[in-house]
Amino acid sequence: MPPNTCNIALFGCGTVGAGVASMLLGRQGAVKERFGDRLELSHIVDKRIDYVREEVSPPDAVQVTDDLDGVLQNDDVDVAVELFGGIETAGELVEKALRNGKHVVTANKALLAKEGDHLFRVARECGRSIAYEASAAGCIPIISALREDFAGDRVQSIYGIVNGTCNYILTRMTEAGLSYDRALQEAMDRGYAEADPTLDVEGRDSAHKLAVMARLAFGTRVELDDVACEGITHVAVEDIRYARGLGWTLKLLAMGIRTGRGMELRVHPTLLPHSHPLASIRGAYNAVCVHTETAGEVILTGKGAGRWPTANAVVGDICRIGLGTYQPQFSALAQFGEVDRVHPVDIDDVRCRYYFRLSCMDRPGVLAQTSGILGEENVSISSCVQQDTGGEEGEHVPVVFMTHTAREGDVRRALDRINSLDCIKADGTHMLRVQQIRGESTQAGGA
Amino acid sequence: MPPNTCNIALFGCGTVGAGVASMLLGRQGAVKERFGDRLELSHIVDKRIDYVREEVSPPDAVQVTDDLDGVLQNDDVDVAVELFGGIETAGELVEKALRNGKHVVTANKALLAKEGDHLFRVARECGRSIAYEASAAGCIPIISALREDFAGDRVQSIYGIVNGTCNYILTRMTEAGLSYDRALQEAMDRGYAEADPTLDVEGRDSAHKLAVMARLAFGTRVELDDVACEGITHVAVEDIRYARGLGWTLKLLAMGIRTGRGMELRVHPTLLPHSHPLASIRGAYNAVCVHTETAGEVILTGKGAGRWPTANAVVGDICRIGLGTYQPQFSALAQFGEVDRVHPVDIDDVRCRYYFRLSCMDRPGVLAQTSGILGEENVSISSCVQQDTGGEEGEHVPVVFMTHTAREGDVRRALDRINSLDCIKADGTHMLRVQQIRGESTQAGGA
Repeated sequence: MPPNTCNIALFGCGTVGAGVASMLLGRQGAVKERFGDRLELSHIVDKRIDYVREEVSPPDAVQVTDDLDGVLQNDDVDVAVELFGGIETAGELVEKALRNGKHVVTANKALLAKEGDHLFRVARECGRSIAYEASAAGCIPIISALREDFAGDRVQSIYGIVNGTCNYILTRMTEAGLSYDRALQEAMDRGYAEADPTLDVEGRDSAHKLAVMARLAFGTRVELDDVACEGITHVAVEDIRYARGLGWTLKLLAMGIRTGRGMELRVHPTLLPHSHPLASIRGAYNAVCVHTETAGEVILTGKGAGRWPTANAVVGDICRIGLGTYQPQFSALAQFGEVDRVHPVDIDDVRCRYYFRLSCMDRPGVLAQTSGILGEENVSISSCVQQDTGGEEGEHVPVVFMTHTAREGDVRRALDRINSLDCIKADGTHMLRVQQIRGESTQAGGA
Repeated sequence: MPPNTCNIALFGCGTVGAGVASMLLGRQGAVKERFGDRLELSHIVDKRIDYVREEVSPPDAVQVTDDLDGVLQNDDVDVAVELFGGIETAGELVEKALRNGKHVVTANKALLAKEGDHLFRVARECGRSIAYEASAAGCIPIISALREDFAGDRVQSIYGIVNGTCNYILTRMTEAGLSYDRALQEAMDRGYAEADPTLDVEGRDSAHKLAVMARLAFGTRVELDDVACEGITHVAVEDIRYARGLGWTLKLLAMGIRTGRGMELRVHPTLLPHSHPLASIRGAYNAVCVHTETAGEVILTGKGAGRWPTANAVVGDICRIGLGTYQPQFSALAQFGEVDRVHPVDIDDVRCRYYFRLSCMDRPGVLAQTSGILGEENVSISSCVQQDTGGEEGEHVPVVFMTHTAREGDVRRALDRINSLDCIKADGTHMLRVQQIRGESTQAGGA
């Protein structure tokens, strides 16, 4: 494309879009300094024309319009930046842009997780590329690391904190002892959670990002259904507190792990040892650990969301395309489509350590009964603490178990049996998974 | 280049070279799985032909030879991987390879720091590229992050632990209380330090890496002389211990900081607060923090040296070139040559906090005299601790000062005056710089 000008049309000018526009116009960052007129914002497509004019104050050379098709058919436009979000309209936009000979930059993980195979097939047909660094973990360059830096390596696992809303909520529950509801409200009040936070708190946003990252990491097709997903809506602040006392910090992790039995793809609240590098990632920050065969453990941390971190990632992709380094032939690498589908491990076959808290009647023999059932189901107890609540004998008291590595199906069956005991308050049982540290950690490395 | 085969010649088959060969031959990593025959190791050039045959056991299709010029003139070779190290021979090799139409991959930071401008000029003339991810921080993808992901952003500072040998030595001094000499010996015994560790322990290896990273980060020319450099050879284990008690951890940092007065480029032992993410990077691990205008703080950690982490980075570059995504036009971005030289800040004009330890005669009035001089030279004391060594009055005792932010020239002048006092043992004075945390830290972020 260089030395000619690369014209960029921005579709959607909300929080992130306005940030991208500001960077392309040289008001933030160094695009103008470094690229001069080789990258030019030519169009902003948004229904709210007056709002955009006020918010962005674009120079006359930038056309602000709601004529989506007109811009898509304009041969002077080289790159379409899709920031609409959602699936249907965004998907149509991306497909039309590709078929009209434009490269696409998108931050839309939901779209890629659901329609990625189809869209990348179209991109290949059209000899155009889809760049999507902003689709996972904001300004953390994890997509380019997986796509290029580790392209010749074998990724053994990738796991991370990829949703800032959930991490903010869990951080506040952990540090200020807030209940889930109060922490969520605070996140909404402070702009760390959207008006409808469902996608985030139910873990689906993390699952979308994991699906996108796992394709690159493992070179396989990943359907969204392959990801076992559990959000943070049922997390009790008591469990965070009890686990903390035992040396564990709770985080919502998205994990892709290559095992001898297939690929484990799961999103769920996870206990990590306090010393694990991810345990200290606070608030709206994200972090991703990649273990590869030759690199060992690499950890990338940074801001995962918000106007500027996301705009940063979008602009990085625009620069790559403008410079000609984002090549369509990359689609020949196993990313989307035309590769085998992953063989996901059934969640019942996952093996890890488990934390659970039972609400037990405080009377003789209860511990013997529950631990007997655990033993029969092959769940071996590593530690057990009866929490002293200062209550009377005969009341329900919390008893916390930590297991050795066990099969999830066995743990579930044991808990079903335990919950049916009349000395157990069934709705008082809470279970959390514990992350086995795979490979060395930075904290433990070298010396 | 695809769908045709990209032939790769490896120049130098030592520790890293043998790792690269193993990956290209499909024995480690996923090159064969992902790229099939699109990337082929065609030649290994090394004087030790028998040794290479034994070490690598290459298949018959790979030619092992000491005929450097023959391979460089072979039109079937597309990529030359320079792993000779050193300056002169490596520089000639890279230039000849480019002039013979080959792309170059190198891990040679010393060569790039010294001859980069010239070699990139040759690359531009020849329409070929030089890829150098392995030149800084091993398998941490910092070069590609700076070159592409943050290409449109303005980097405000970059600082990191980029020499594993020094970090190993400082970790052992900190945690096991070893003297510098004993820690160095242990590092050599365990293979964490080379037989001649001078380049590492004197900080020059870190300075080379900083020069390479700073060019990309700041889009300027950086000469090696622009980097103020001090190694770890004079670090006393007592200072690590005293500073630790005050809440600080000692690391050898390479720092590039954009300031209103110009660019600060420096390598020296640096005290960091225990809570800083870099303070917990142990042993042979590396970590780099980048602060940019829009991304905020991004931290990348991983193994910085050794066969596999370095081979990983080299192979990542080979994959990029093989796929056609490493474009010569990248040299049009401010990297090497044809941009303004950086305006480095004189080390005397650097402003930070300082730690120093004086060896004072234990008698009345000494503290008043020394603090009087510091005040006259505009060095404001933040804390002062006289260490109780259990000695007699009249003996020399260590007194540790921590200053507020001060100008280095003022600190040096004050220390010169203090050292000339007859109650001070001049050769007992030790000074360390303290890193001001720029921007938010991950630890403090968000919540």
